[in-house]
Amino acid sequence: MSERGKSIDLGPLPELIGYVLRRAQLAVFQDFFAAFAPFDIRPAQFSALTIIERNPGLTQSQVAEALGIKRTNFVGMLDELEKRCLAERRQARDKRSYALYLTADGAALMRKLKPVLKAHEARMIARVGEDGRDRLVALLHEIVDGPARKLKNGKASRAPRAGSAET
Amino acid sequence: MSERGKSIDLGPLPELIGYVLRRAQLAVFQDFFAAFAPFDIRPAQFSALTIIERNPGLTQSQVAEALGIKRTNFVGMLDELEKRCLAERRQARDKRSYALYLTADGAALMRKLKPVLKAHEARMIARVGEDGRDRLVALLHEIVDGPARKLKNGKASRAPRAGSAET
Repeated sequence: MSERGKSIDLGPLPELIGYVLRRAQLAVFQDFFAAFAPFDIRPAQFSALTIIERNPGLTQSQVAEALGIKRTNFVGMLDELEKRCLAERRQARDKRSYALYLTADGAALMRKLKPVLKAHEARMIARVGEDGRDRLVALLHEIVDGPARKLKNGKASRAPRAGSAET
Repeated sequence: MSERGKSIDLGPLPELIGYVLRRAQLAVFQDFFAAFAPFDIRPAQFSALTIIERNPGLTQSQVAEALGIKRTNFVGMLDELEKRCLAERRQARDKRSYALYLTADGAALMRKLKPVLKAHEARMIARVGEDGRDRLVALLHEIVDGPARKLKNGKASRAPRAGSAET
């Protein structure tokens, strides 16, 4: 912040969950953008490729839903991934929908991205520490899902449900 | 999440700070959008109006910088706020820039929005509890600023510095 900016009164903003969440999300994405720029991969594309890689054969609707992305937006993103030969649509068995798969190029890219992701995440963890990361991720899941329901083994349930991850 | 979606393997995504931050931010903004829709106010507009209200006479660059918004984007936002008679530009003393002020309508709107904001924030706090909110906000500031520097009184420094809050 510049000398001029120092004395600006932000009022309640720095204590508002939404305001601070947005600034933190943008700070993290800024690092992600810089790290993944050489591969021309944005966060939402990375998430989509991850889901397709881990769950080959899902339909467009299923991937869109898992990501919390609107189907129309996901179709556009997939068009781009398909044009770049990273993912492909194949006619599904019921012939009414498409099943999604990574191409060989897509699978190779994901292997190349693993260390990039690891380094990005390590830089983020360095800001809050390992314990801080665990607490932060748990709290963020509570923001998405409401208070965690404790499971029998004492671990909190963390499956994300609502919200969306478009970018 | 639908029955079909239940078994989808999200891989490392639910533990990645950026992914969970984005989903939490969108979940909070979803509530904000719904609550502020009757007033046609988006989160970034609310932040801008708050800064102008608390710091009458700042220049466009100063407000943009405080919000972490690109100046060009802020000028567009301000055009809209001015067209709606909520804020106004006045020639600054140095005559080379504009000083920003709320109009009477803008000030009246901000008074009306106070209980709306309070109710929105209360719903968010209900998801994590008061202590959870405090821990979450502190961790998010660390994500933006790096590890908190402890001050003499034992409280962590929290002034947001990097990142941006455009929407």
